[in-house]
Amino acid sequence: MLERAKHLLRPSVRSAVPPFMVMDVVAAAARLESQGRRIIHMEVGQPAAGAPATAIAAARAALASPLRYTETLGVASLRRRIARAYGEWHHLDIDPDRIVVTTGSSAGFILSFLAAFDAGDRVAVPLPGYPPYRHILTALGCEPVAIETSAATRWSIDSEALLAHHRAKRLKGVIVGSPANPSGTMMTANALAELIGCAEDAGIAVISDEIYHGLDYTFAAECAARISPDTIIVNSFSKYFCMTGWRIGWMVVPPPLVRAVERLQQNLTISVPTLSQIAAEAAFEGRAELENVRRGYEENRHILLDGLPRVGLDSFLPADGAFYLYADVSRFSGDSFAFAKRMLEEAGVAATPGVDFDPVRGKNFLRFCYAGAPEEMREAVERIGAWLRK
Amino acid sequence: MLERAKHLLRPSVRSAVPPFMVMDVVAAAARLESQGRRIIHMEVGQPAAGAPATAIAAARAALASPLRYTETLGVASLRRRIARAYGEWHHLDIDPDRIVVTTGSSAGFILSFLAAFDAGDRVAVPLPGYPPYRHILTALGCEPVAIETSAATRWSIDSEALLAHHRAKRLKGVIVGSPANPSGTMMTANALAELIGCAEDAGIAVISDEIYHGLDYTFAAECAARISPDTIIVNSFSKYFCMTGWRIGWMVVPPPLVRAVERLQQNLTISVPTLSQIAAEAAFEGRAELENVRRGYEENRHILLDGLPRVGLDSFLPADGAFYLYADVSRFSGDSFAFAKRMLEEAGVAATPGVDFDPVRGKNFLRFCYAGAPEEMREAVERIGAWLRK
Repeated sequence: MLERAKHLLRPSVRSAVPPFMVMDVVAAAARLESQGRRIIHMEVGQPAAGAPATAIAAARAALASPLRYTETLGVASLRRRIARAYGEWHHLDIDPDRIVVTTGSSAGFILSFLAAFDAGDRVAVPLPGYPPYRHILTALGCEPVAIETSAATRWSIDSEALLAHHRAKRLKGVIVGSPANPSGTMMTANALAELIGCAEDAGIAVISDEIYHGLDYTFAAECAARISPDTIIVNSFSKYFCMTGWRIGWMVVPPPLVRAVERLQQNLTISVPTLSQIAAEAAFEGRAELENVRRGYEENRHILLDGLPRVGLDSFLPADGAFYLYADVSRFSGDSFAFAKRMLEEAGVAATPGVDFDPVRGKNFLRFCYAGAPEEMREAVERIGAWLRK
Repeated sequence: MLERAKHLLRPSVRSAVPPFMVMDVVAAAARLESQGRRIIHMEVGQPAAGAPATAIAAARAALASPLRYTETLGVASLRRRIARAYGEWHHLDIDPDRIVVTTGSSAGFILSFLAAFDAGDRVAVPLPGYPPYRHILTALGCEPVAIETSAATRWSIDSEALLAHHRAKRLKGVIVGSPANPSGTMMTANALAELIGCAEDAGIAVISDEIYHGLDYTFAAECAARISPDTIIVNSFSKYFCMTGWRIGWMVVPPPLVRAVERLQQNLTISVPTLSQIAAEAAFEGRAELENVRRGYEENRHILLDGLPRVGLDSFLPADGAFYLYADVSRFSGDSFAFAKRMLEEAGVAATPGVDFDPVRGKNFLRFCYAGAPEEMREAVERIGAWLRK
C-alpha cells in the first residue's frame, strides 16, 4: 500500500518549479513577531494601504445581492471603464472588446502564455525578473530563456541581446516590464518602442507587464499599446489601486487572440471574482486617495535614496518606479540569503534576497519594498545603519 | 504590418479548445429578455440563492481592513475549518495540512493536473461529463481519454471500462464525479470504492470531483477520502454553499503532492481572493439556511420528476443528486441544440444542449438545472407541456 502510493503519486516533472525564497523570510519574520519582536516589513511587494473608499463602498453595496458568475471576459461596464482609462492615461482609444478582466495579473500571464505559445516554444525573460514569469512558462511546457540585463541597457532587455538569443534559440516571445520587478528600473519610451518593433519584426510576440504603471517617479512609463496593436498587455489592480488580496487584473489583447483567450478563460476559470470586479470599477473613482498613497511612496523613495547611502548601502539600480529598491550588498556578503536572514534577526528589517529574481547574480542583491509608512522607512534606515556599524 | 500581425499572433494550437455551447443559449436568452420576454433559466448550473447571511456578515466586517495576499495554501483558520467539516460530514480525521484553498474548483483542477500529470499523460474522463475536464487537460498538454458511460453502470466509469482503456492507452489518471454533471447521477459507495481500488492498484491516479457533495437526495454521496489517502479531492463553495461568484473552493491533497501544489500555486496564483476565504469560513455557520436551500432543490426535483413525464419528457437519467436532470429528447429531435433553441424562443425556457457534455450522444439530450424557485419549476413544466402539445 505504501509502495503503491509512492509510485502512484510522484509529483509531475513540470511541478518541480522553485518556491519563492521570500516565503522563508516571511515565515521567519512571523516567528520573530510571535516572540514579541517588532519587524519592519520590506519583503513582500504589496501596498500597506487598502483599496480606495469608493471600492469598499461599492463592494459593501453589492453584498446585498447574490454574487453569481459573470460574463467570462468580465463585467461589460468594467471592461468599458478600463478601456476609458487608456484614454485618460495615454490618450489611447482602446476597444473594450480587447479588454479581458482576469483573476489578478497571475491569470493574465497564464492566459497569455496558453493563448500565444505552444509547448516547447521559447520565451525570453529578463534577469533579474519576476520569478513566476519563468516558473509559469515552465509549468505550461514552454522554455524560458533568461537574458541577463545590465546597467548598460538600464537593466532591460535590448534589441541586440534579444536578436542574439533569437539567432541561437529561435524565440517565440519575450516579456518586458517597465517599471520592473525587482529593480524598479524603467525603459524609456524610445527603448520600449525599439524593442517592441524589433521583436515583432522578427516574429517574436511581446507581452508587456504593466502592473506597476501609475507608479513612476522620474519619467512617465510608456504604454505598449501606443507602440503596437500586436503586443499583449498584462495589468492589475494590485499595485496602483492597492487591491492585492482582491485578485483582480486585466489584459489588453490583440484582436486575433481575443477569442482564444475567451475560450481558455471559459474552461480554466469560468469567470473572475464578481465582488472584485464591482470594487475594481469603483476604484477608478478613488483617484485622489490613490494619488495620496503614491505621494507616500515618493516620500519613502526619497528617505531611502537619501538615507541608505549614508549608512553604507550606497549601490542600487536606478529606482525609477514601482516601490522597489534593488541594492547591491556584495560589499557585505556574497550570500544575500544569509545576509537577509541576519538583517532580519539582528536588525528586525525583512527584505527579499535577490536569488528569487536572478539565481546567479542575485547572491549579491537584496530587494527592499518601500510601500509601507514613511516613519517605518526612516526607522529601517536607522536600524540597518546601526546594524551595519556593528 | 497587417501581414506581420497575422503571422505573429496566430493563437496557439493548444488554445483551440471548444467554447461552451451553453453560452450561446445564455446570450440568446438575454436577447429575448431585452425584448421584454420573461425567460425561465434552467441553463446555467448555479444556485439562485446567494451565500448564507453568516458569510455576508463576515465579508462586510472584513471590508474594514485592507485585503492583502494570504498564505498561498489558504488562511490557516479556513483550512482547519474545512478539515473539521470532514469529521462532521464523514467522520473523517483529515490533517489541515492536506487542505489547499483554491480559486474555485476550476483552479483545483488546474493544480491537480499540473501536479500529478506531465505533458502527454493520458487521463480518463466520463462521457457525458463536465466539459472543462477535457479542455483544461488539453490546454495543459495532457490527452483526455473519453469513456462512454451507460445505464448499465449507473452512468459512471466502472473498473472494467477503465482497465480496457488502460490496456489500450496506458492511462495516468482518471476523473470521477458523484453526483455527476450534467446527469446528477451518483455512484454507490461500493462502486466508488471498487473503481478507486482498481485504478490505484493499476497505477492510475484518481481525481474525485466532489463539488456537488451535500446535494444528494436518494442515498448519501461517498467521500473518496474514506476510501483512499491517495485520491486527490476537488471541492468548491459554489454549489452547496451558494457562492459561485466568489470563486472559492478547496482540495484534499495526498501528502506526497502537497509541496508540489504549494509551489505551483505560489507561482500561478500567489494567493486566493482574501474576502472569499473569510466569507467561506463563516459560511460553515450558515448550515440552517443552506439546508433550507437544499430542501428547495428537493421540492424542485419532485416537481420535475413528477411533471415532465406527464407533459411528454419521460426519459431521463437517475436524478440522484446535484441539481440537474439530463433528459433524453430524441423522441422530439435528433439535434438537441436546435431543440433547445426552439424551446427557448417558443416556450421561454432555457436549458443546455447535451453536446457540451457529450459531443456525440449529447445530440439527444438536454440538461435542466433545477436550482431556481419552485414556482418557476412548475411554470417550466407547464410551458414545456403546452409547447410540446403544439
